[in-house]
Amino acid sequence: MTQQLIPARGYAAARMKKGQTLKVINTYGQQVIDFWAFADTDMTEYMSMHHTHAALLKIIPAVGDTLVTTKRRGIMTILEDTTPGIHDTVMPSCDRYRYQQLGCEEYHLNCKDNLEMALDDIDLKRPVHPAPFNLFMNIPVSDVDNNSISWQPCQASAGEYILMRAEIDCVVAFSSCPQDIVPINGPNCEIVDTHFVIS
Amino acid sequence: MTQQLIPARGYAAARMKKGQTLKVINTYGQQVIDFWAFADTDMTEYMSMHHTHAALLKIIPAVGDTLVTTKRRGIMTILEDTTPGIHDTVMPSCDRYRYQQLGCEEYHLNCKDNLEMALDDIDLKRPVHPAPFNLFMNIPVSDVDNNSISWQPCQASAGEYILMRAEIDCVVAFSSCPQDIVPINGPNCEIVDTHFVIS
Repeated sequence: MTQQLIPARGYAAARMKKGQTLKVINTYGQQVIDFWAFADTDMTEYMSMHHTHAALLKIIPAVGDTLVTTKRRGIMTILEDTTPGIHDTVMPSCDRYRYQQLGCEEYHLNCKDNLEMALDDIDLKRPVHPAPFNLFMNIPVSDVDNNSISWQPCQASAGEYILMRAEIDCVVAFSSCPQDIVPINGPNCEIVDTHFVIS
Repeated sequence: MTQQLIPARGYAAARMKKGQTLKVINTYGQQVIDFWAFADTDMTEYMSMHHTHAALLKIIPAVGDTLVTTKRRGIMTILEDTTPGIHDTVMPSCDRYRYQQLGCEEYHLNCKDNLEMALDDIDLKRPVHPAPFNLFMNIPVSDVDNNSISWQPCQASAGEYILMRAEIDCVVAFSSCPQDIVPINGPNCEIVDTHFVIS
């Protein structure tokens, strides 16, 4: 029941048992969190955004929906969501290449490397880098305008949260998205601490 | 310049050099083809639908667009498309689990296993199973109705094709989607031969 920290620009990982719940809290608001879940018995099976699209016939999962793995098994069900319900399933994690393209000449912290370090902390290696479930990330999809998508600021306010239930034993990992060039973490590009609770 | 066969329900793979072109022909119409491309020098770098979304800010790439890899390098540019331009980047390959869920009691050919066999044919192993660029697959995305997506029949007619240019040396692989339960390959669920030409 202890609240655990996902430090601003940092990462965290934990193990969950089937039936446990996970609350991810946007403590100070407007912070995007890249979120991954892997089957604990075999990390080559992981929560997949593509397979979730096929299971739900939706781009954005909502309360009552179960996200699925690469073997099409349920892994995470959304029980409650006090945010506006805006999350993303079509964008990749940011990575060193992304920041190079945005003009960074020095190394920039990024969600891809954060996943690696988060799993290192619990002595695991990631077999692949899955596309994340981008919690609180606001990437509207329009079918009107040539299927365009755009980067928009996070709409989650301070204290809002999403609550999910693990459907299988799993490893979960989080990255506090350190994107401070494109204003997805609010117009001021401030990166802030967030928290999670496993119960 | 020889036309090569992607047999109905089957697969093919080939190597391409930077600058070569690839024409994928919907020979008899209404056939979906799962298409993958890997960097020839390092197959852990591959054409990624998520990274392509970020690069193009579109769900469906069109003529003039360059699909990118997991390292955000251009790998395939669309030069010409005589089909209605409907392709898919949000659905996974079909696999044995999908057909089990659709009620198949016996093994059903599927695009995931087809990729493995296609690469086997040229003595390669896939390090991961990337989400494919689903050529000619019709999965409209609606932002009006809760971001819903749906399975619709392929709109490509006999003889229509898409022409792409390789931006780096790469390995390409194709699966003739054997989906004959959900009518994505036309209302009669007929699976037919298709062809490709590397020039």
